[in-house]
Amino acid sequence: MAMQCGVFMTPYNPPSRTPRQVFDWALDIARICDEAGYVDFMIGEHYTLGWENIPMPEAIIAACAQTTKSIRFAPMAHLLPYHDPATLAIRIGWLSQVMEGRYFLGVAPGGHHTDAILHGFDNIFELPPRQLEALHLMERVWEGKPFLEKGKYFQAGFPGPDTMPEYDVIVADNGPYGGRDKLEIAVTGLSMSSSSMKFAGERDYSPISFFGGTPQMKAHWNTWADAMASMGRVAERSRYRVCRDVFIADTDAEAKRLFLKSGMAQTWAKYLKEIYVKFGLFDGIIHDSGMDITPAQVDADFLAEHVVLCGSPETVIEKLEKLADQVGGWGQIVANQHDSLDDPKPWEESLRRFATEVCPKVRMPNLETA
Amino acid sequence: MAMQCGVFMTPYNPPSRTPRQVFDWALDIARICDEAGYVDFMIGEHYTLGWENIPMPEAIIAACAQTTKSIRFAPMAHLLPYHDPATLAIRIGWLSQVMEGRYFLGVAPGGHHTDAILHGFDNIFELPPRQLEALHLMERVWEGKPFLEKGKYFQAGFPGPDTMPEYDVIVADNGPYGGRDKLEIAVTGLSMSSSSMKFAGERDYSPISFFGGTPQMKAHWNTWADAMASMGRVAERSRYRVCRDVFIADTDAEAKRLFLKSGMAQTWAKYLKEIYVKFGLFDGIIHDSGMDITPAQVDADFLAEHVVLCGSPETVIEKLEKLADQVGGWGQIVANQHDSLDDPKPWEESLRRFATEVCPKVRMPNLETA
Repeated sequence: MAMQCGVFMTPYNPPSRTPRQVFDWALDIARICDEAGYVDFMIGEHYTLGWENIPMPEAIIAACAQTTKSIRFAPMAHLLPYHDPATLAIRIGWLSQVMEGRYFLGVAPGGHHTDAILHGFDNIFELPPRQLEALHLMERVWEGKPFLEKGKYFQAGFPGPDTMPEYDVIVADNGPYGGRDKLEIAVTGLSMSSSSMKFAGERDYSPISFFGGTPQMKAHWNTWADAMASMGRVAERSRYRVCRDVFIADTDAEAKRLFLKSGMAQTWAKYLKEIYVKFGLFDGIIHDSGMDITPAQVDADFLAEHVVLCGSPETVIEKLEKLADQVGGWGQIVANQHDSLDDPKPWEESLRRFATEVCPKVRMPNLETA
Repeated sequence: MAMQCGVFMTPYNPPSRTPRQVFDWALDIARICDEAGYVDFMIGEHYTLGWENIPMPEAIIAACAQTTKSIRFAPMAHLLPYHDPATLAIRIGWLSQVMEGRYFLGVAPGGHHTDAILHGFDNIFELPPRQLEALHLMERVWEGKPFLEKGKYFQAGFPGPDTMPEYDVIVADNGPYGGRDKLEIAVTGLSMSSSSMKFAGERDYSPISFFGGTPQMKAHWNTWADAMASMGRVAERSRYRVCRDVFIADTDAEAKRLFLKSGMAQTWAKYLKEIYVKFGLFDGIIHDSGMDITPAQVDADFLAEHVVLCGSPETVIEKLEKLADQVGGWGQIVANQHDSLDDPKPWEESLRRFATEVCPKVRMPNLETA
């Protein structure tokens, strides 16, 4: 089984881009990735973040239903405390049917502070229990059996045959495409001690790591695998997805030159670096590099060498195989999407080459499962 | 000012159609209507109704962003008690920007019994106050000024500049395209005593009547106009939309022949007639017809003559002008969309001819406003 590739659109377009520009860009990238052989296309959901401004991933997904053929889509992630769970459950099922199964689901508690304030929270501690109750009610809606439940935060139900005895009601079938068992659910983890990996393993959800270096990746895998084992399940490496920044060109020098003037470099300089420094997210990567620097000293050269998979196809294959040998392998490498509206060609070329010249050639350990 | 035309997709496709079939059909119809000169395309939102199964009108709207040029779209209506109001407010604003203003908003309390049960309600009396509170919070979110409010049913807020003093937050601009003042809000009314017309007039929302005969149309207009006047506003006929079933062909006989074997006739026979009989919705139309029949006696001939605008372009123009003389005119006639997947050509032809051969020629009184 070969390593697959996916793409993650957070979207990391600057706040100066309009919603229409980001929308059109997302559709362009999805079409390119579909043609290039990417397997999954994930789209973030945030409500207030200028650099991550897609509040309705379903809009992108639906708009790609007719413009793409094979690639699967996922909201990554629907922020469950911010939705009516019955509305969301029906919309997920209906959209998975519109996509004829080219759909999987990301869920998350939605911890961004400004998003929480938008939704009327004065602290974020209530978010995880709300997520749990939402999931419970969504699962009941997907069962399609009559019930009515008022929870602590939400309520939901399902109409039965005697709901309106005065006339026949034909209840629409808006369950997940192929049945609930066919719906993959996934969660992302970023910090080394992320609680989402344990949460995922306990519920048979798939794990996705945003890259944080080998200590974090090992911790994520082990936490998920232990939680899976605790429930009597086999943890398959093929279900593990790892997100990376990627820039491919003919030579290492050319890739670095193009990276430095790319939207990706801008996003790091103007947005991500500050967040990564504040929350200690460079720590594992600096440790791996063997360099004696502080997170604040991370510069574009360090990014090109240690954070971004930047280089010729051969170089990037080598970097990926070395990482896999260290952490044990994964099933899908997910390229983070970045802005490149002003000069799209090098970026689109990099996306295509990653799928066609890099991923099929990477030797990946531990992917031979029953 | 000429009478405009719109289209309303409830969607009235039989429960046997898959979500993907309905989705593709909606996109086809939107493209045809955009090319034919329809001004507005409205899409229903229901969660459990087999015959009206689009739970996410935004999915259709977003998918039409690149495939249509001029036509405006509206969810008709977002059912406010079934949404987190902050999530919905941001998504409305963002989508109106994606559509570059080709967007307006329908709101409703969502009274369908099975939809209410899905959302955990054991009675529907709580829905109207929930709608009011949701609107209040959505308006506050659209103001974009810092606040945090916990209401009886919902909560919402908006992040201020000192929300995360530890690093700069650039809050995304997801307000309505062109500002809140540019966002048209509309509501629909069906029964003669519908409270939504008063609600609309008091809030400067536009009124839309599902057809119920001249007594109902007069009542709807008068209720809305009185409510508008009570707030010191001028009630313009150009803002009034009226929904009708329409079938156009070369001759009256051909139109009736095609109507009788159409999806529209099927919808009436298998779904709508029962509802219209139960809730007395034929009463005004039977009164107008001068016929001495009970609602249960309404048959296909009656539908073709008195419910559907069925006939040659000349006949339908005449019927519309007669109705307008009786009730005082309106700004937009809205053709109800029906299933015709098995034989789309006559239906699509009827749609095109209504926009090009009927609507531009209808003399409409009272549309000359300042």
